[in-house]
Amino acid sequence: MSTHGAETSSTPHYWPPGWHSRDGRLQVAGRDAGDLAEAYGTPLYAYDAGLIRERIEALRTRLPGPVRLSYAVKANPMPELLSALSPWVDGMDVASGAEMHAALAAGQPAGRISLAGPAKPRALLEAAIEAGAVVGIESARQLELVGEIAAATKTAPELCLRLNPDFRLRSGGMRMSGGPSPFGVDAEAAGALLERARALGLRIGGYHVFAGSQCLDPEALAESHRRGLAEVLALAPAEAPPAFVNLGGGLGIPYSRGDEPLELGPVAEGLEACLAELDRRLPGTALVLELGRYLVGEAGVYLTRVVDRKVSRGRAFLVTDGGMHHHLAASGNLGQAIRKDFPLAVATRLAEPAAETPSVVGPLCTPLDLLADRTPLPRAEPGDLIAIFQSGAYGLTASPTGFLSHPPPAEVLL
Amino acid sequence: MSTHGAETSSTPHYWPPGWHSRDGRLQVAGRDAGDLAEAYGTPLYAYDAGLIRERIEALRTRLPGPVRLSYAVKANPMPELLSALSPWVDGMDVASGAEMHAALAAGQPAGRISLAGPAKPRALLEAAIEAGAVVGIESARQLELVGEIAAATKTAPELCLRLNPDFRLRSGGMRMSGGPSPFGVDAEAAGALLERARALGLRIGGYHVFAGSQCLDPEALAESHRRGLAEVLALAPAEAPPAFVNLGGGLGIPYSRGDEPLELGPVAEGLEACLAELDRRLPGTALVLELGRYLVGEAGVYLTRVVDRKVSRGRAFLVTDGGMHHHLAASGNLGQAIRKDFPLAVATRLAEPAAETPSVVGPLCTPLDLLADRTPLPRAEPGDLIAIFQSGAYGLTASPTGFLSHPPPAEVLL
Repeated sequence: MSTHGAETSSTPHYWPPGWHSRDGRLQVAGRDAGDLAEAYGTPLYAYDAGLIRERIEALRTRLPGPVRLSYAVKANPMPELLSALSPWVDGMDVASGAEMHAALAAGQPAGRISLAGPAKPRALLEAAIEAGAVVGIESARQLELVGEIAAATKTAPELCLRLNPDFRLRSGGMRMSGGPSPFGVDAEAAGALLERARALGLRIGGYHVFAGSQCLDPEALAESHRRGLAEVLALAPAEAPPAFVNLGGGLGIPYSRGDEPLELGPVAEGLEACLAELDRRLPGTALVLELGRYLVGEAGVYLTRVVDRKVSRGRAFLVTDGGMHHHLAASGNLGQAIRKDFPLAVATRLAEPAAETPSVVGPLCTPLDLLADRTPLPRAEPGDLIAIFQSGAYGLTASPTGFLSHPPPAEVLL
Repeated sequence: MSTHGAETSSTPHYWPPGWHSRDGRLQVAGRDAGDLAEAYGTPLYAYDAGLIRERIEALRTRLPGPVRLSYAVKANPMPELLSALSPWVDGMDVASGAEMHAALAAGQPAGRISLAGPAKPRALLEAAIEAGAVVGIESARQLELVGEIAAATKTAPELCLRLNPDFRLRSGGMRMSGGPSPFGVDAEAAGALLERARALGLRIGGYHVFAGSQCLDPEALAESHRRGLAEVLALAPAEAPPAFVNLGGGLGIPYSRGDEPLELGPVAEGLEACLAELDRRLPGTALVLELGRYLVGEAGVYLTRVVDRKVSRGRAFLVTDGGMHHHLAASGNLGQAIRKDFPLAVATRLAEPAAETPSVVGPLCTPLDLLADRTPLPRAEPGDLIAIFQSGAYGLTASPTGFLSHPPPAEVLL
């Protein structure tokens, strides 16, 4: 069994840790990709629960012990995956009523579930309060509605205040703070909101700062955590420390050629300093990281079968049964100014050298349905399997599965 | 009742023909948008069947009489819409097995249904041949598979050859021909494929050329139709004229500020010339246009309710219950290098002047969920309805409805 590095010439540009091949064929959780394709059909999302567990254990080893890990359900809400992962994390962050119920069904205690989102209609707030989840307050209106519901139901809801801090994640994928934002309450306006909460008899038991996501620069992450904490410390009353401060996530994974895996060292050091500061200023307050992609992204692969092979005006095309309708991000159509170049391989020919640079396209009648643009691969034929790595997060549920009414993919946790 | 133009200052930048307001509120097929939102809930896709019919009738009046109109189901496969539209068109183009069955269920005779797509696995080809649909041949492999199925089942399948012509649509949205392409058979290689079809005892009864879509330049469209026909004429045997030549679609509709509605005059003149040429060279062969977006795109609106209104660092945000998970194209995440600026209005305040330039954002925890970026609107409050026009095509089914597990939108044909 091979664990891969540079030993074959047709491995993808990034080979995620913990994946293996045997006899030149991709193994998923010890099973041959071809056997999985037979058993479950293609296209197929396959996730390796063992790799998710290893990732979480590695994080617990590398990060300071007291840091709590919360899973952002939106990254991958597959019920089996949530159930498997639930005992390994300290909480879940949810972004809709259905995600909240999925987290509950997976066994998370309600008090460890936090509900975020810029639009929280009254019915959703009522459901979250009734369930006992932590409701993230992101606007004055959300606070007023919660106050009304609390008064009407005579409950003391668990609340957390999401801040829109006055800084931006210095580098990395998607910035979600600084300047005007629909997410959270502007830090400079949060004091008034805390006062209003007190007037309404509501207690803010936590703070949430989320500066951005998919960042591969550890120094930038450490800085964003440090500055996020500083904004909370400027606000939270020392005489009644909150139960937790959620400093968001942001830990990225490599996608495109040239991306390097995130170095955890500086992130861990920064969190160590955050913990010391927190202990000094708000003793007893827990530090939470909210991670989605970083926990599950590298543990999933999308497998699609080559249906046709054609050469048009000198260029080879591998036409597959799966495509952008299942994996929008891999087709470059999910918020990407520059197309992400997902690591991709012929799962059934890993030991063969690259022989051509075909484009890999899906079954849809649109040029948008492009999974790989002229990438070096061994010569593949109909029947071969294409593997797209780094597909455990923001894959199936972030894709327009109804587009052109093709069958949905299978999805399996191994 | 107002039919709109410039008479109010907060109308969207494009007001599609046939839409009206009453007392400053949007009417959909004569019903108040607010009543529809009450009756069906929000978010809501509402389509006006009358407008679709008017569009088709207008086309039949403006285009030469013999031109056949085929509906591209992928633009909007809602079953009620297909059933309503079916008697008004001369055929349907489908891109998957489910679309084929939807077209059959809507009442299209199998012989008027054409199946296109770069990936046609054997099972799909078998199903199409059994149903009696016209199978588009787009590769040598597809032809061989069809030959095998025909021999095994002793049937004479209806076939059409899709050409990848050696030119590109001169201007306009999405180019789908010229150079290397996964779509169709390179024109210069098609002769050999026709020979192979004869050797297999298969008859090619039609030709299909599709140069691109969403084009607003009538001269470019006319040129693409003329050149597409020329490629077919160079190939099709005059002694046995095909039943039809499908010159594709490409007729665009306005989306962004500055887009002008397509002038049909030059398109009609070009088709007149194509018909004359066809009559001279391949007498009896029908000319087909395949249209999706142009038939239904302007007949649909997406209605979403304002859930929150917040001002962050000087910028107003209207937070709605619908967003990119229902309308990916409006959020700018469907194949757009430059974000399309869909016409949008406060459906409940059409008579009020623009008072601010808020951003309209959906409920998802991502900055990608942006429906309008700082656009002039009257001051809206929670409870108001936002209308996104030009939403009848490539809306719901082209969107990642599972993203963040929010409820799906309602969909209604009126």
